[in-house]
Amino acid sequence: MSKILVFGHKNPDTDAIASAISFSYLQNALGKETEAVALGEVSEETAYALEYFGMEAPRVIETAANETNTVYLVDHNEAQQSVSDIHDVEIASVVDHHRIANIDTANPLYYRAEPVGCTATIVLKIFKENNIAIPKNIAGIMLSAIVSDTLLFKSPTSTQEDESAARELADIAEVELEVYGLDMLKAGTNMGDKTAEELIDMDAKSFPMGDKNVRIAQINVVDVEDVFSKQAQLEKAIQQTNLANHYDLFVLVVTNILDSDSVILAIGNPIAAVEEAFNVKLDSNKAVLKGVVSRKKQVVPQLTEALTK
Amino acid sequence: MSKILVFGHKNPDTDAIASAISFSYLQNALGKETEAVALGEVSEETAYALEYFGMEAPRVIETAANETNTVYLVDHNEAQQSVSDIHDVEIASVVDHHRIANIDTANPLYYRAEPVGCTATIVLKIFKENNIAIPKNIAGIMLSAIVSDTLLFKSPTSTQEDESAARELADIAEVELEVYGLDMLKAGTNMGDKTAEELIDMDAKSFPMGDKNVRIAQINVVDVEDVFSKQAQLEKAIQQTNLANHYDLFVLVVTNILDSDSVILAIGNPIAAVEEAFNVKLDSNKAVLKGVVSRKKQVVPQLTEALTK
Repeated sequence: MSKILVFGHKNPDTDAIASAISFSYLQNALGKETEAVALGEVSEETAYALEYFGMEAPRVIETAANETNTVYLVDHNEAQQSVSDIHDVEIASVVDHHRIANIDTANPLYYRAEPVGCTATIVLKIFKENNIAIPKNIAGIMLSAIVSDTLLFKSPTSTQEDESAARELADIAEVELEVYGLDMLKAGTNMGDKTAEELIDMDAKSFPMGDKNVRIAQINVVDVEDVFSKQAQLEKAIQQTNLANHYDLFVLVVTNILDSDSVILAIGNPIAAVEEAFNVKLDSNKAVLKGVVSRKKQVVPQLTEALTK
Repeated sequence: MSKILVFGHKNPDTDAIASAISFSYLQNALGKETEAVALGEVSEETAYALEYFGMEAPRVIETAANETNTVYLVDHNEAQQSVSDIHDVEIASVVDHHRIANIDTANPLYYRAEPVGCTATIVLKIFKENNIAIPKNIAGIMLSAIVSDTLLFKSPTSTQEDESAARELADIAEVELEVYGLDMLKAGTNMGDKTAEELIDMDAKSFPMGDKNVRIAQINVVDVEDVFSKQAQLEKAIQQTNLANHYDLFVLVVTNILDSDSVILAIGNPIAAVEEAFNVKLDSNKAVLKGVVSRKKQVVPQLTEALTK
């Protein structure tokens, strides 16, 4: 039998990469033959974490069915966020911490989701349930995922369980959690050499909401002006991607990881739903969302509600 | 806050009832306020098990949103098998052992599915992970669910984990597993006083397959002639329910629990897909399926494939 492929979502963030690596390691320890792969190149943040712990980025795949019949998904379940030929392979396992939507299987599967801040927190739990020891570098990449998804526990998605998991993993990985964590987050905010096209695609996901096709991208920064100094180019790039990919609405969420606020840039239709969802008035297509740092908890449900009623 | 309602699928079988009762007990022990309810009256098999262990059948509900904002699903996830107003409440938790389809949530949730023979087997695992002791009567109803779903471990859906779980629960419940199990299964095969309309609806579930709406009912018997002596009435009842509910295809699976074969009766369109799925020729709308006892593993995937290619 060919190897089972394990992967996170398109435009992989640190959790998508780390959970694929760690869940694949765990399944191999349990006797399965799996390989962690990725649906895109790693971000600068993830590259920093991989290098810090002496690991290679997973191989990037475009399709799965040419290699295997069976896949394990981590950190996502929605078809449009997964590999392009997801309907041609069998999803035998999902470990995730997002809403469930647009997933259909013909057969029963292993599905493990919890409303915690990071998939790696759930993967740690499965390691423990199976009494498998976690190597130092795997622990390091897992704690990096938790730091990334929870913004060092400042996101409203962060739970006590995520923080405990990160501290436990930091002990195994032998790092100072707060010091390493802030260094890693800052490594991900380096926008200097990015084009507008790259900025709007770095961490972007698609969501069907009602009859609209919504694209939501997020960028973490230490100064939002780093991004909005290019507002004209960003708007042009967004208009082009909306046209090319039939997105009705594009919301770019630029999050300041130090003060935990975001500024959104919204282009498309219906703009009124954006204003209603966040109770703001857009000015030059922008609005400040105080205290908003989580796409999953503070952006997707609010927009979904505004667009489906 | 109003109580969280916990329920299994429509036309509840013993697992739908037992997993609701036991998962609700577990969540209450963990500090939640929940109530196990049912989406229909219990079967004779379930009634036998409840009476044996001195328990009441859960209250039957028609809708959920009039009582609560939040529900926990057990033993199902597909909307068409759930409460009629499932889209008006939040699904906060699912424990299941079926395929995933037709489920969409706005928010992250707790989802626990494994490809084992019975939901109660997974519920037992969650009891243990949380170190909650299982009372004798709860253990009794849980082992009844495992016996029911696995036909005393003879179904191909049965796993080593289901059998171990049933034996562990039988120790707590203080019953002889094989003796009690066969008595309970036989209690569920009493067809004497059932009308054709009741027989085709006792354990029936709907499945969208491709662009067809397929209804699959299963009846366990010790003699298939008990059912097919009423074939003319059954066909008439099926034709009527197909018309009334827009089912394209109805497959009645009559399973002999002693010799582990089934006879199917198929009415609707396309019949050719039924013959292809099971590699049989229907004769008077009937065919023998040797060794077939599991709707989930030996009927649904085969029909899905024949209807979606």
